[in-house]
Amino acid sequence: MTRDNQTCSQEIRSLLHSKNQPLILAHIRPDGDAVASVLGMGLALQADGKKAQLVFPEGIPSKFKFLKGSDTVHTQIEPGYDLVIALDCSDQKRMGAEFADLNVDINIDHHITNENFGHQNLVLPEEPATSAILAQYLPQWGFPITPDMAETLLTGILTDTIGFRTSNVSANTLHLAANLIENGANLTELYEKALISQTFSASQLWGFSLSRLEKKGRIAWTSITLADRKQAGYPGRDDADLTNILSAIEEIDVSILFNEQNNCKIKVSWRSNANINVSVIAQRFGGGGHPPAAGAEITGGLEEVQNMVLEFTDSFLKEIQSKGENDYGK
Amino acid sequence: MTRDNQTCSQEIRSLLHSKNQPLILAHIRPDGDAVASVLGMGLALQADGKKAQLVFPEGIPSKFKFLKGSDTVHTQIEPGYDLVIALDCSDQKRMGAEFADLNVDINIDHHITNENFGHQNLVLPEEPATSAILAQYLPQWGFPITPDMAETLLTGILTDTIGFRTSNVSANTLHLAANLIENGANLTELYEKALISQTFSASQLWGFSLSRLEKKGRIAWTSITLADRKQAGYPGRDDADLTNILSAIEEIDVSILFNEQNNCKIKVSWRSNANINVSVIAQRFGGGGHPPAAGAEITGGLEEVQNMVLEFTDSFLKEIQSKGENDYGK
Repeated sequence: MTRDNQTCSQEIRSLLHSKNQPLILAHIRPDGDAVASVLGMGLALQADGKKAQLVFPEGIPSKFKFLKGSDTVHTQIEPGYDLVIALDCSDQKRMGAEFADLNVDINIDHHITNENFGHQNLVLPEEPATSAILAQYLPQWGFPITPDMAETLLTGILTDTIGFRTSNVSANTLHLAANLIENGANLTELYEKALISQTFSASQLWGFSLSRLEKKGRIAWTSITLADRKQAGYPGRDDADLTNILSAIEEIDVSILFNEQNNCKIKVSWRSNANINVSVIAQRFGGGGHPPAAGAEITGGLEEVQNMVLEFTDSFLKEIQSKGENDYGK
Repeated sequence: MTRDNQTCSQEIRSLLHSKNQPLILAHIRPDGDAVASVLGMGLALQADGKKAQLVFPEGIPSKFKFLKGSDTVHTQIEPGYDLVIALDCSDQKRMGAEFADLNVDINIDHHITNENFGHQNLVLPEEPATSAILAQYLPQWGFPITPDMAETLLTGILTDTIGFRTSNVSANTLHLAANLIENGANLTELYEKALISQTFSASQLWGFSLSRLEKKGRIAWTSITLADRKQAGYPGRDDADLTNILSAIEEIDVSILFNEQNNCKIKVSWRSNANINVSVIAQRFGGGGHPPAAGAEITGGLEEVQNMVLEFTDSFLKEIQSKGENDYGK
């Protein structure tokens, strides 16, 4: 820990102990780590006798409603708070438009892009989850980990690392997770609830889509059509985690998922597992993203967009090959 | 650790140090833990200057050939060994028919059904993998964990726990895995190589099979047909991990996979995620297994077997329901 982080941590400790009505927020479209961080911090402060206010404007995704404290969450801020804590937010806009003018006292996050918008900013980009930061610091700040907190924080770590799978998982992360188990969290149960379970219709959607899986050279692709969603009764417009399945295929360098939307648009997702910067391809179609994972939304029919994208991706890969390199654009 | 295990551990330690040409074996159709245990133990003894002989009659599955030491594996026993070590084998028959008469000195395993067929039997059924036992004991026996051993043993733990997911993963397992990372193993890389990556044809097979996914009441089922395998070019006769996908479906109590074989037989796999003892159902068809996961091989056509099994499973669940219990037969 740097000296700055040490000073910041001490300031946060004293703020947490001197204030009694903290307001705790995370980001819009909350994921497991956002939910877990807010609930974990809330449970810690509530156990210490404070009147903590936990706010998610959109509520909590039903998947995470099993977590303790989720029934105390509000969708609007009530007056009377004396401390504002933002968790897992890289910038203040991401907290939600209605919170853009809030005076943020404490900002705790693990995103490298964090804009340090709080008075105290504990930003640790080497950590795989904000929940992992809280699991380390809360006890240091005088808030011991209860079984409910352990369950919540382990859920945040599990979801943000997809079951300890991402490249930012360290030995320390596993020691931390082990400590949370020792503090009362049931790993198997949380794994099942937060990561494994899948609806019948999602499984069927996978089937419809994967049965049309195609491959040409080092590119594999498939689509999710409006008809697939209808036939499977799948409610969302998302990719049902199919990109994870595609990116796990061994013999290919780039996978592409074409996801048909209602509005004559096709959401296209590229994944690379061979050091190919697919965000360059996505940018060509008005999209963006990261080197191994990028996307774009393209107007047109499924077949038309598919042909266009496959042709461009193919020529992009051939260009790289002709240059004798495979990390073009990185 | 019991006193028996302590004595046994001391005996094993002295055997490992007094002998110089150990023969190390595991079970037929070796999985990740069998491979990892043998390679891990072999690397430890080789690093100590011993001439260790590592034997897998069928060789090592290609998926695990990236592990150090896998190129030193033999498919036959050569004379001249002075110590026989069986790893991850519940009974001696499982070592392979040709090894049924071997005099086994050391038997190290984590299966609760282990028959204690060795002179020294270190059987720890609470451990999630034989690799986890070795990761704990090898250093105690005077064989420090090298980076190659760490990589191998972490692969065994990862595969046998499906990424720390199974119910026998404890806080200690995560601490152990963390230690292996500290000793040089790259978790992300091993996760990808040993657990995530999947062939194109397996992904396509998933598609063909899942596109026919059906549900009736609390039972979901699908099949893998000979035609699916042919169309996908899938080489194995196994279930391509589809049972894992089926058992993750939220709204159901029992999932069934019908896996058509060449010889007019159907391999049937039941999974339960609701405390229903499906091994009772499998026994009815001449099979067996564990309460949450069981199987049987049934002679007949796909449709015929499917109808028969679905009818029986359905009436079995109705019987449980009428009794107002859901752990019948446990």
